[in-house]
Amino acid sequence: MARPIPDVPSDSEFPLQNLPYGVFTRPDEETPRVGTRLGDTVVDLKVLEHAGLFRDTPLGETHVFCKRSLNKFMQTGRTCWDAARARLTALLDGSDARLADDADLRKAALVDCDRVTMQMPVEIGDYTDFYSSKHHAFNVGTMFRGPQNALMPNYTWIPVGYHGRASSVVPSGTPVRRPCGQTRADEAEAPTFGPCRLLDFELEMGFFTGPGNPLGAPLTMDNAADQIFGMVLVNDWSARDIQKWEYVPLGPFLAKNFATTISHWVVPMAALAPFRCAAPEPDHPPLDYLRQSDPPEGCGPGGWAYDIELEVSLQTAEDDPFVISRSNFRHLYWTMQQQLTHHTSSGCNMRAGDLLASGTISGPTPESFGSMLELAWRGTKPIRLPSGAERKFLQDGDTLVMRGWCQGDGYRIGFGECRGTVLAALDA
Amino acid sequence: MARPIPDVPSDSEFPLQNLPYGVFTRPDEETPRVGTRLGDTVVDLKVLEHAGLFRDTPLGETHVFCKRSLNKFMQTGRTCWDAARARLTALLDGSDARLADDADLRKAALVDCDRVTMQMPVEIGDYTDFYSSKHHAFNVGTMFRGPQNALMPNYTWIPVGYHGRASSVVPSGTPVRRPCGQTRADEAEAPTFGPCRLLDFELEMGFFTGPGNPLGAPLTMDNAADQIFGMVLVNDWSARDIQKWEYVPLGPFLAKNFATTISHWVVPMAALAPFRCAAPEPDHPPLDYLRQSDPPEGCGPGGWAYDIELEVSLQTAEDDPFVISRSNFRHLYWTMQQQLTHHTSSGCNMRAGDLLASGTISGPTPESFGSMLELAWRGTKPIRLPSGAERKFLQDGDTLVMRGWCQGDGYRIGFGECRGTVLAALDA
Repeated sequence: MARPIPDVPSDSEFPLQNLPYGVFTRPDEETPRVGTRLGDTVVDLKVLEHAGLFRDTPLGETHVFCKRSLNKFMQTGRTCWDAARARLTALLDGSDARLADDADLRKAALVDCDRVTMQMPVEIGDYTDFYSSKHHAFNVGTMFRGPQNALMPNYTWIPVGYHGRASSVVPSGTPVRRPCGQTRADEAEAPTFGPCRLLDFELEMGFFTGPGNPLGAPLTMDNAADQIFGMVLVNDWSARDIQKWEYVPLGPFLAKNFATTISHWVVPMAALAPFRCAAPEPDHPPLDYLRQSDPPEGCGPGGWAYDIELEVSLQTAEDDPFVISRSNFRHLYWTMQQQLTHHTSSGCNMRAGDLLASGTISGPTPESFGSMLELAWRGTKPIRLPSGAERKFLQDGDTLVMRGWCQGDGYRIGFGECRGTVLAALDA
Repeated sequence: MARPIPDVPSDSEFPLQNLPYGVFTRPDEETPRVGTRLGDTVVDLKVLEHAGLFRDTPLGETHVFCKRSLNKFMQTGRTCWDAARARLTALLDGSDARLADDADLRKAALVDCDRVTMQMPVEIGDYTDFYSSKHHAFNVGTMFRGPQNALMPNYTWIPVGYHGRASSVVPSGTPVRRPCGQTRADEAEAPTFGPCRLLDFELEMGFFTGPGNPLGAPLTMDNAADQIFGMVLVNDWSARDIQKWEYVPLGPFLAKNFATTISHWVVPMAALAPFRCAAPEPDHPPLDYLRQSDPPEGCGPGGWAYDIELEVSLQTAEDDPFVISRSNFRHLYWTMQQQLTHHTSSGCNMRAGDLLASGTISGPTPESFGSMLELAWRGTKPIRLPSGAERKFLQDGDTLVMRGWCQGDGYRIGFGECRGTVLAALDA
């Protein structure tokens, strides 16, 4: 069976089992289009679509891959997603020979990944950020209120979340300008305005939604999973000093809305299915609307967790990339199904391409904390880098890189990287 | 000078001085298009645009009025907005005779307002809700923390706001389903899930943004006003019992995201200019970034307030519409310029068609409070209706109508109405 692309190295994050979706521009054409990635090759799905290779699938003539974003594809729903993935797999493993046997088509559709420019994969309608790591909520609560009062009484009942800013979600590689804002020193009468001094990252993952639900018609735990298209890495950059002064009583605002970085490739849930695992045992049973009626074997009533290894590296002027945190998506108290069901339980409508992020993914051990605030424990335990440099928070010129992957038997499903470099504040 | 439309009655909310923008469908065509309104006539701007009547303005061939939303027009910026308004005024007062003298064009472009269906005027990218009435913040704070601790220490420094949900912003007339959610009685161990019992309205106004600013490049008090396109009425429906249990520590979420209603017609700032007035004296000077460098005469450093009278009516099964609140937009502590400048001060980017709402507009007196929570003072002073019925919060079947207008000398600039009827919860 001829294959259109040579075998993918076993250490690639993008084997045939992954086939993530992204949006890119080619060196020779300005118009963004949808692609997938196999090894070091980007497959131009607009070209395959024009060649009619999806016409006999449920996608028909929808031309979802000619668009500048994944939204239209996300809108089509699970039947189309499954059909597209099956067709792509067949075309790329050669069992459907129409790509492998057509030299012109191969030449037109396959592009070396170094020659493309990745774009925002999705036009995000609404962005929501949850707070689903109990370890993170406990750590932050402990710092500010002591361990006795660390968790709010609603924490184990509600997948707490808040609305974020969609306009400032940017793709990996976009530099992040240090924000300015109001802060007030503890002893001061009045606040001052100036560059953030406590700039932080937050290690998160997020998922994009499918067709969604009409306003007033909530999803349920039994149908919410079908609305989850796929996942990305998320860095929810945070200005801790701005947040502290502004966040009462209506929550974080400018402390979060200056930038949120996502990885380029959206990994479909079908690629992640082999890595489903049981979610942590809840402290008490959730309310009925947050329980599945008939969970599959091995899955708790709250739905699946996923075993996704996560790693955060910090690169400074003096230091090569240095791993400062190792965590895992499975540590979350609330599942994606519960987040999505809860979000719509008020009647709130989801649209294709909405982004729901997890909140900081801290694990149970200090090495697995997902923010500088926790890793350096509010500045009391600075992170020591190989050069001898220390960090309590991020400095100008620092580059933060997140990676995530699922380790299979002889293969690895990766998310690429979620990268950003801190630029000096405008008036610094 | 012939006019294309007979003189507008002096009590009309839509005289020649208004010329708001909206999006509508005609009885004979499904495609939404942009219109303005004069008296009881809707003027189809797509038709005027096709007839070439904007070609010699800075709008040129942009075809902004053929779109399904005002976003493209908002994107063009103040020079184009001013030119469009000047041209429209001339066409409608007859000083430019090309519409008045062309019977076919008049027939094609002018539609009776009863024959059109109004649509969402804008595709809202991001929706932000502020908290800019000090009276409202004080009232709510007093109820929950007593008058001594009513205002948070940041209130007079920060135009406090939070990110809202854009997907559930709906046009006037859309019924609003009572949301379900988690609530917990004060004495209870665990929360329960069910229909909201304390459903409320919030009397607000909002403005839409123009071209905006790139990420990382804040607006300033000296250029922010040019980014404000126009205003609408806003009802920020609120589920008080859900809010109380969910809102710590990240702010309101499901208590607000089930629906936000806006009025159909966006009144341009040019129409509101005659009604500018001084903003209330601040408790102390704001920080420099929230002050204009050279305010015009009569305008404080924080920018203009606007004298817009506001009225809320409640209609029940037993009662005709009954006015329950009379307020005024000028009561706000923070101006729109300050809200917008503050919002971008972190580097957050605005896009054309973002909606920034004021927060509940409560005035200083009990009659001018902008929510049931305040009018009935947390249920302790029920609102008595003419039929003898009482209301502490909204009941199923209740219709809430907001109106707003500027009273000029012999004319009135109105916003139409912002209306919604409460439907029973799904599982009620």
